Amino acid sequence: MNRYIEEKIHTFQDKNRNRARFLIKCPDQPGIVSAVSRFLYDHGANIIESDQYTMDPIGGEFFIRIEFECDELKEKANLLEEDFHSVAEKFNMDWKITYVNEIKNMAVFVSSQPHCLLELLWEWQSGDLMANIAVVISNHETAREMVKSFGIPFYYIPANKDIRDQVEEKQKQLLQDYDIDVIALARYMQILTPSFVETYHNRIINIHHSFLPAFVGAKPYERAFERGVKMIGATSHYVTNDLDEGPIIEQDISRVDHRDNVEAMKKVGQSIERSVLARAVKWHLDDRIIVHGNKTIVF
Amino acid sequence: MNRYIEEKIHTFQDKNRNRARFLIKCPDQPGIVSAVSRFLYDHGANIIESDQYTMDPIGGEFFIRIEFECDELKEKANLLEEDFHSVAEKFNMDWKITYVNEIKNMAVFVSSQPHCLLELLWEWQSGDLMANIAVVISNHETAREMVKSFGIPFYYIPANKDIRDQVEEKQKQLLQDYDIDVIALARYMQILTPSFVETYHNRIINIHHSFLPAFVGAKPYERAFERGVKMIGATSHYVTNDLDEGPIIEQDISRVDHRDNVEAMKKVGQSIERSVLARAVKWHLDDRIIVHGNKTIVF
Amino acid sequence: MNRYIEEKIHTFQDKNRNRARFLIKCPDQPGIVSAVSRFLYDHGANIIESDQYTMDPIGGEFFIRIEFECDELKEKANLLEEDFHSVAEKFNMDWKITYVNEIKNMAVFVSSQPHCLLELLWEWQSGDLMANIAVVISNHETAREMVKSFGIPFYYIPANKDIRDQVEEKQKQLLQDYDIDVIALARYMQILTPSFVETYHNRIINIHHSFLPAFVGAKPYERAFERGVKMIGATSHYVTNDLDEGPIIEQDISRVDHRDNVEAMKKVGQSIERSVLARAVKWHLDDRIIVHGNKTIVF
Amino acid sequence: MNRYIEEKIHTFQDKNRNRARFLIKCPDQPGIVSAVSRFLYDHGANIIESDQYTMDPIGGEFFIRIEFECDELKEKANLLEEDFHSVAEKFNMDWKITYVNEIKNMAVFVSSQPHCLLELLWEWQSGDLMANIAVVISNHETAREMVKSFGIPFYYIPANKDIRDQVEEKQKQLLQDYDIDVIALARYMQILTPSFVETYHNRIINIHHSFLPAFVGAKPYERAFERGVKMIGATSHYVTNDLDEGPIIEQDISRVDHRDNVEAMKKVGQSIERSVLARAVKWHLDDRIIVHGNKTIVF
Repeated sequence: MNRYIEEKIHTFQDKNRNRARFLIKCPDQPGIVSAVSRFLYDHGANIIESDQYTMDPIGGEFFIRIEFECDELKEKANLLEEDFHSVAEKFNMDWKITYVNEIKNMAVFVSSQPHCLLELLWEWQSGDLMANIAVVISNHETAREMVKSFGIPFYYIPANKDIRDQVEEKQKQLLQDYDIDVIALARYMQILTPSFVETYHNRIINIHHSFLPAFVGAKPYERAFERGVKMIGATSHYVTNDLDEGPIIEQDISRVDHRDNVEAMKKVGQSIERSVLARAVKWHLDDRIIVHGNKTIVF
Repeated sequence: MNRYIEEKIHTFQDKNRNRARFLIKCPDQPGIVSAVSRFLYDHGANIIESDQYTMDPIGGEFFIRIEFECDELKEKANLLEEDFHSVAEKFNMDWKITYVNEIKNMAVFVSSQPHCLLELLWEWQSGDLMANIAVVISNHETAREMVKSFGIPFYYIPANKDIRDQVEEKQKQLLQDYDIDVIALARYMQILTPSFVETYHNRIINIHHSFLPAFVGAKPYERAFERGVKMIGATSHYVTNDLDEGPIIEQDISRVDHRDNVEAMKKVGQSIERSVLARAVKWHLDDRIIVHGNKTIVF
Repeated sequence: MNRYIEEKIHTFQDKNRNRARFLIKCPDQPGIVSAVSRFLYDHGANIIESDQYTMDPIGGEFFIRIEFECDELKEKANLLEEDFHSVAEKFNMDWKITYVNEIKNMAVFVSSQPHCLLELLWEWQSGDLMANIAVVISNHETAREMVKSFGIPFYYIPANKDIRDQVEEKQKQLLQDYDIDVIALARYMQILTPSFVETYHNRIINIHHSFLPAFVGAKPYERAFERGVKMIGATSHYVTNDLDEGPIIEQDISRVDHRDNVEAMKKVGQSIERSVLARAVKWHLDDRIIVHGNKTIVF
Repeated sequence: MNRYIEEKIHTFQDKNRNRARFLIKCPDQPGIVSAVSRFLYDHGANIIESDQYTMDPIGGEFFIRIEFECDELKEKANLLEEDFHSVAEKFNMDWKITYVNEIKNMAVFVSSQPHCLLELLWEWQSGDLMANIAVVISNHETAREMVKSFGIPFYYIPANKDIRDQVEEKQKQLLQDYDIDVIALARYMQILTPSFVETYHNRIINIHHSFLPAFVGAKPYERAFERGVKMIGATSHYVTNDLDEGPIIEQDISRVDHRDNVEAMKKVGQSIERSVLARAVKWHLDDRIIVHGNKTIVF
């Protein structure tokens, strides 16, 4: 990693050494907010940001994300987590606390088209995407120079469906070596095996170049052109074993008209793809997303 | 029709008594624009607006829409059309001239939800939708009072798939009686027979409450909610015999999030539906649309 | 009021008879959320929706809006408000509780252009704008028939700057007679006196036909055209004594191009004006807006 | 310039060796389109794209942009231009022909914030911005490494208002040395002298970080925050001697809310600035812009 980015990250970590996030999911019932906010207050924490959602006031699921500051957080972290167990049990909570200064290790997978990868690298360099981009893995050599100019290791692993298992073995090894928390598929045009997907459950973020569920699968721009649509889109979602069917994180669209042929649509689309993927990745890194069934709550 | 709107229409007709539009489609080759513009010049017409498009400079289809002014247009109309035959033949043109002061007779079909109908009536009343809305036909009584307050005849014709032929007989009779040029299906939740569609080929404009080709068919909002999309849309298209597969005229979308249940999505969607349908109808009335295969060129 | 709308309102009131909203503003400090949520829990209330904002975690102002359900709310309302005083004092809170089934009485002021008034009436009729539109006051006769067709009293009070005081006397009397809570200026092209504005402090919502602070004052479309802007906008704000300088509630824009003359810009603009004003009014009715200095927090 | 981009440019030039553009401005009168299209036809040229606009059918100004193909264009260019003089004279035309394969030499001026420069470089590298970015000039060293990695000469010329003339002398020399056609001010925070502006009349494109005419001058984000606007914008315009008053080429906006402080607004704004400037520059390079008075026609 280059020095410039390293410094940005250190500054961020220093500024956020006492900052953490609560993510909680449980059946709705009276008293949850009261119990959690009381818990935080009693432990000397101050709520900075809080966002909640109830699927249905009667018998629905309840979700909350709380960002809080707490003096000497590092020292208190174990205690906080231990003490919270009794609250969590009472309300039957599915919960976690994440610590903002522990930034996540990210891998980016890419094929021959680098625009989405580049957007991630740029946002990273400008300090807007706070992760440790630890490694880039590609089945093409295209992006090597660019990636290395950012001081990031680049691995070329040729891939196709006949050698999927061997390829994934190599990939998994790298992901372990770099202790990867989250994978961004920045237009990586290969299907992953169920075993791979399982290992990184709800931690693999894909960008699909259509407004899902329109144009699931291959060649969406070609099919959009054929259908004569007046807008094209892109969709970022967590990867599951059903192609392009995982929980949607973010979507966006742009206008096209009869003058736009497939080439022109691809150009317009690239710009949507890169911003949609970048937003989805940043929300994941900021622990803003809770997956529930096949949907996302994005706080 | 009420007096207020009648006056608006007369003012418009008077202002445009010498205004016409050329719509031409032919194989591309050098000299088309030269020949047409020369023709207009020689006949004393002045080009006000011109928009053209070539699918492919080599061997593609060429499209042009020209709006022009011509003194004493009414007197010259026959001559213009006759004289143009030789140009049209030379370039193998599919063409027509429309006269702006001959405003089109429109029928609106609606079921129980009046929001799209109302949008059309309002735009009409404010002078932004220049047609003669001659009749509203519905399989529900809901809109009767509202329609009559605009001075428009309202016909209640109960409909369901078992009596489709009888229903369409009555509808066709009304369409003939009112000399209808174009039909807007403003959320008319009945399927039309091939014979009906054929009679009004490329003159029936539907609004579908999804971003096609996503969620073709029934209950699109329910399915959008199930899928967890982050945007919902609406699509206006000419009706063909393939359900929701006709040439798309216009689409638009709006953001939703995890807080929006099906009801909320419908509310958001209504606002998109009404503006998308209104735009499509106005473009049709302004002769801005050329259908080519299953696509539209919208000038 | 017509029967149809009356029923919608009754249904809404019945459904929300136990629903209320807390709006709180105070200096930030640890323990606020804990205290308020504990208070609600202890009084048998369940939090349905909660949104908060801190201007600055260190020494900033804290804002929260909580929507809650409470059995037998009507009977408990007095007790709730009394009991809350001790909490409010401790944290130095500026607060209020509003009861969702007590819908607000609204007056609409309009001049000769009815598009914004009509949007409000339509949203009202469709049940999307939950208020009692009790009276429409205009310095033109244009909208009389339309307003009466909705069953709403219409008062014509000619106005100009020379008779401002007499005019406002009449208006104030009507506002008292109808027990008005909030006034929407739906393109009412008259300036109000400081005394009038004071009486309805932060309860008069205006729509200005530009993207403020661009084109403050008269003839914004003409000036937008002169300047050659590529987008035009509209701004809804609370009225203060500085012309077009009050707290902004909502803004939106739409694209224009060199083809759009002043007339065309006005048409495009009308559509923005009506949706921007309607959104602002609905947020006010839903108690989503907290004014702080010359800005709004919109939850 | 690096090899990769060089190849893209050569491919483009080769593909467009017979492609040219007509830009014409003249008082409207019948026969213009006929004369020009006849002229092209007679010279063996085929119209590929044509866009026209009349300010006012009666006595207004007429504008047209025609893109055409012509075999052996290079050989015929002189003849074309000579022959056209008689047509031009007849209609009193202000006109030029540009040759698509003669790509323009561009200089980019930048200060300490590189995001707009980077956007231009990326679009350039991806082949979407077809120019020869010949030189980057900056009053900061920030962008040096980045610019050099693209194979472009970088010149550091410290600047402030006290040494404006000396600074511009050096800049002008460089602009001459590199034979510059167009200058992009990619957040170059210095004012240019009238003499400099005159030399590159309608060829200096600036990006201003507000939705003009709101927030002319310094610190627009700070002032937008103070005013409590709900949207922020950016404006690209040709530079004139009136600060931020030149002909507007393109604008765009993005939503902000009460949670966005000045820093957050700047982040959101950067993304708008970079896309707005890139669009304006590309339209200029594609000869899509005609300046008329203080406005632009963008075809």
